Amino acid sequence: MTGKDGGAPLEPIGNSPVVILVRPQMAENIGTTARAMANGGLFHMRLVAPRDGWPQDRAWRTASGADRILEAVEVFDTVDDAVADLHHVYATCPRPRHIVKTVLTARGGAEELRAATRRGLKVGLLFGPERTGLDNEDMARADALIRYPLNPGFMSLNLAQAVMIMAYEWWLTEDGTLPRELMTNETHVATKGELENFMRHLIADLDECGFLRNEEKKPGMVRNLWHFFTRGEVTEQELRTLHGVVTELSRGRKLRQG
Amino acid sequence: MTGKDGGAPLEPIGNSPVVILVRPQMAENIGTTARAMANGGLFHMRLVAPRDGWPQDRAWRTASGADRILEAVEVFDTVDDAVADLHHVYATCPRPRHIVKTVLTARGGAEELRAATRRGLKVGLLFGPERTGLDNEDMARADALIRYPLNPGFMSLNLAQAVMIMAYEWWLTEDGTLPRELMTNETHVATKGELENFMRHLIADLDECGFLRNEEKKPGMVRNLWHFFTRGEVTEQELRTLHGVVTELSRGRKLRQG
Repeated sequence: MTGKDGGAPLEPIGNSPVVILVRPQMAENIGTTARAMANGGLFHMRLVAPRDGWPQDRAWRTASGADRILEAVEVFDTVDDAVADLHHVYATCPRPRHIVKTVLTARGGAEELRAATRRGLKVGLLFGPERTGLDNEDMARADALIRYPLNPGFMSLNLAQAVMIMAYEWWLTEDGTLPRELMTNETHVATKGELENFMRHLIADLDECGFLRNEEKKPGMVRNLWHFFTRGEVTEQELRTLHGVVTELSRGRKLRQG
Repeated sequence: MTGKDGGAPLEPIGNSPVVILVRPQMAENIGTTARAMANGGLFHMRLVAPRDGWPQDRAWRTASGADRILEAVEVFDTVDDAVADLHHVYATCPRPRHIVKTVLTARGGAEELRAATRRGLKVGLLFGPERTGLDNEDMARADALIRYPLNPGFMSLNLAQAVMIMAYEWWLTEDGTLPRELMTNETHVATKGELENFMRHLIADLDECGFLRNEEKKPGMVRNLWHFFTRGEVTEQELRTLHGVVTELSRGRKLRQG
């Protein structure tokens, strides 16, 4: 599915959340923010009263190729103007005080953004100026605040890093990657029969060379080898290599003995 | 609980994962990486063969105060030396090919790191040079690869951004923040009795001004107001404000009528 502007293949960009940078100071940060957005599949950027005006070449130099985002940037004079056509607006904010407001984690916020876009609603994320963050008026316009769970002893977060975390969480809301998986590429995970075949080869050669000559200890030693070789998945290709290792080690011994 | 070196109050830094930058090129990136580590509660940095040597002033200039991490950096000639005292090593890697290896998501990797440190094991994360990433020899030393689920159409990830995501996920493994919560600060969530008291006030005044004069429609209109005022939590302070709003609006009407 592609967006109205013929965008990225994997994401319906027409309705992905709008990243709104409020009074951004450094054009370089606008560029690195565009890069972070592209990483997580966010494509709509709006600027409210950028300090140095717009466009700025310096943004393109730091965007690492996320040019399409910069080219489509919309500029507004006020936060009210920038959010007027949106249905939900979330404000990122490190440590709000003295206000009554719903606060979400980054993950909780991303899930609500995804749920709203599935309902066809337009949603936006407000990020404040580099030094001062969002002011009280900006936060009063937001439906909820998003506060990242991070080390309270060191909260200094670069603008692009802040956007990166939301972009990453946004991407994860539709990602189904398994948390742990053996990547086998051209080979396959071996069956138990293939493993047993290798173990028979190994034990036969160990028997022959006398490593298992203590009949009392032999069953336990064989079981321990089984425990080792079943600790993780093994591939067919790796079993072929291991067969070769055992054969060659045995052959070397036989040649020396011969 | 604090680490052996009297570190941050919330994190047992003595055993948190070691971030190992392999052949890093730009000292500025070492500084921004230290900042990202501090954000997520990672405090041990090792460098393998940094291109421009170590220490470098430029790293301190970009670390935004994460100086303690830079001051404790350990430098090694090879990856083997840098991981020799560790029990588990994970390598971050955007798109490995032609190898058989366990691949984890960032979240899956962070959970395994946490589990290993709980067992008292020392763990490390390898990050490759800015341009080329880790080479095949580096990856062969790792127990598993960590690949971030991100937009496959735009995977260009800055070194500090890559570290930020792992640091963030590391922090989350022990974070219990509720995904959504009303932050009430000095006030409290109102009880249903307090809300009903306000609704009685509102409906009485609406009755008096004639807004509810259509007896047939009145029950539905009152129910709709109830639905609106129960949509989200409301605080005691907000109910006091709303009582005042109703009272003052009524008084204005009465004065005009008087």
